[in-house]
Amino acid sequence: MKVVVGSPGTWTGLVLRIGQCAFAGASIGIMVSALGFSNYTAFCYLVASMGLQALWSLGLACLDIYALKIKRDLHNPVLVSLFVVGDWVTATLSLAAACSSAAVTVLFARDTGFCRSIPQFSCGKFEVSIALAFIAWLLIAISSLVMFWLLASV
Amino acid sequence: MKVVVGSPGTWTGLVLRIGQCAFAGASIGIMVSALGFSNYTAFCYLVASMGLQALWSLGLACLDIYALKIKRDLHNPVLVSLFVVGDWVTATLSLAAACSSAAVTVLFARDTGFCRSIPQFSCGKFEVSIALAFIAWLLIAISSLVMFWLLASV
Repeated sequence: MKVVVGSPGTWTGLVLRIGQCAFAGASIGIMVSALGFSNYTAFCYLVASMGLQALWSLGLACLDIYALKIKRDLHNPVLVSLFVVGDWVTATLSLAAACSSAAVTVLFARDTGFCRSIPQFSCGKFEVSIALAFIAWLLIAISSLVMFWLLASV
Repeated sequence: MKVVVGSPGTWTGLVLRIGQCAFAGASIGIMVSALGFSNYTAFCYLVASMGLQALWSLGLACLDIYALKIKRDLHNPVLVSLFVVGDWVTATLSLAAACSSAAVTVLFARDTGFCRSIPQFSCGKFEVSIALAFIAWLLIAISSLVMFWLLASV
């Protein structure tokens, strides 16, 4: 199995995992600090999905640190298959959550004009949280493609 | 390059493409027949994205028919790379559009209760159109994975 940039048990792989975890965590933090987010299903789904993403990435970051420390090779087909499934599931859920929340925010900001007419509505926080969720998705998408490439090129 | 189920220039590939085109077309048809859909950005985006999806799948279906007719092999790396990029872009856009529209519909039906309180609101049509969009996405996701697998296993 080839070793490419971002593959498991490498420094680039570890940086990707830490990035995913950090952006997902920041997205959750900003969303839960926004007033009344829990009244909207899409925003609750974003928090749940980013929570799952952060946990998954944190787990794999710990595994990467362990592999780097004891210089163990994580490139075996069974392990990579597991990473592929996990990465694809979390990536799809993260994209779905980010798009869902973005659609609701666009509805509030543009279609109905709630953000202008109701100033106590935390539209700014919703937007920042969604932007961070999209960055987290981008990083997990890179990991997913690398894992799938590794598995397919066995 | 291996020939797997759903790869370009095969009968299964053609069936997948026709399915994508049909579901995307049906999704557009039902959405545009819903009253006032154009007031919401997410629903307009669904129509645009499904339009792109239908055009792309129609083009590749025609190419599959041509390849089957003259028994030409479409498994060359340059062509498959082109299919991979197109499939991934349309699949991501389709998922984003379906999730966005679903989030807005959930907001109307569950969070705000508009669907119950305003009967002339075409919530049923929105839901059917979104379900068809998700089926179209599922089919294009299968095609995308097959194409990526083909490219990676060269």
